[in-house]
Amino acid sequence: MPQGRPVAIPGDNLTTRQRRNRALVIVHTGDGKGKSTAAFGLALRGWSQGFRIGVFQFVKSAKWRIGEQTALERLGSLNSQTGEGGPVEWHKMGSGWSWSRKAGSEADHAAAAAEGWSEIKRRLAAETHDLYVLDEFTYPMAWGWVDVQDVIDALAHRPGRQHVIITGRRADPRLTELADLVTDMGKVKHPMDCAQKGQRGIEW
Amino acid sequence: MPQGRPVAIPGDNLTTRQRRNRALVIVHTGDGKGKSTAAFGLALRGWSQGFRIGVFQFVKSAKWRIGEQTALERLGSLNSQTGEGGPVEWHKMGSGWSWSRKAGSEADHAAAAAEGWSEIKRRLAAETHDLYVLDEFTYPMAWGWVDVQDVIDALAHRPGRQHVIITGRRADPRLTELADLVTDMGKVKHPMDCAQKGQRGIEW
Repeated sequence: MPQGRPVAIPGDNLTTRQRRNRALVIVHTGDGKGKSTAAFGLALRGWSQGFRIGVFQFVKSAKWRIGEQTALERLGSLNSQTGEGGPVEWHKMGSGWSWSRKAGSEADHAAAAAEGWSEIKRRLAAETHDLYVLDEFTYPMAWGWVDVQDVIDALAHRPGRQHVIITGRRADPRLTELADLVTDMGKVKHPMDCAQKGQRGIEW
Repeated sequence: MPQGRPVAIPGDNLTTRQRRNRALVIVHTGDGKGKSTAAFGLALRGWSQGFRIGVFQFVKSAKWRIGEQTALERLGSLNSQTGEGGPVEWHKMGSGWSWSRKAGSEADHAAAAAEGWSEIKRRLAAETHDLYVLDEFTYPMAWGWVDVQDVIDALAHRPGRQHVIITGRRADPRLTELADLVTDMGKVKHPMDCAQKGQRGIEW
């Protein structure tokens, strides 16, 4: 846990309280494991604080359904049943974004990624969620499917108190520059090094 | 996501399937954020696979209750009500281990840590849980409150299929040597650098 004493007081004209409650852009990058897992862990934490959670997975596969989705959507359903925690929406590019009527051609991942980002921009403008997880969003940025400067501008000028977590390798320097919190998950050792493949409950 | 092709085939006489399902020792270390959060994210994933989850927080404070505890215990209660997912136990050193009758003197953290580890050893021998989160367990090891070699031996010889995740800075080299998966969460940038303190939903 970080120590409580800030290392420098910035000239941003904010009170400590205002600064403390400033919404964050968080980036989990690096070649190691834990980038998405830690993002979903933050969503778990946010749920219990009543945050409205929006997860947007920029993954190509429609079939892949990870355990976190099951668990977080179940927590979201508790919110609608009993009022506990916050609501949870989980959207996945590979299965065709659920808000979109287009069936979506399997091949056109670039258009799907751009469409996903457009929707996220609309939601940021409308303050739809308190916590956004943009999972594996660094890849469409790296591949030019989504314009990096457009992402930076939308994040920098988002209204209200909306936290945004972006995961994936090779985060663009402009993104890490903008971000408030950047963690590099470095691989020290991985079972794959010893010919062990992914397994139930650990990888999904 | 790691590629599916192992870089080397070890001479361990295991089939690919046996090797794949070998239980893991996972270490989240480093000075950055995300060590515990990613561990609780794995617990979330394990829950949806029906794993019996045991969380053991080696923290001194009794008052601190993080959002993950609320959310994961709620998921655990769903398991007992409806059979969904797996059961969840959450134990915290600072409030006196719940299985212990000793009130526990505030000052005697060393004894409390040793007592926690003894219980975990008993549970490993009894195969009580499928997934253990030993949160901030590197500290009692670093401070000599728990014998590192005893931990290594108990982990190396644990029976059955029990995954163990250990979090905290400065993991002992013997522990990372034993571990199957080690991620170093490196701090690239943290809001504290800009005089922003921890906030609701992000830090707890």
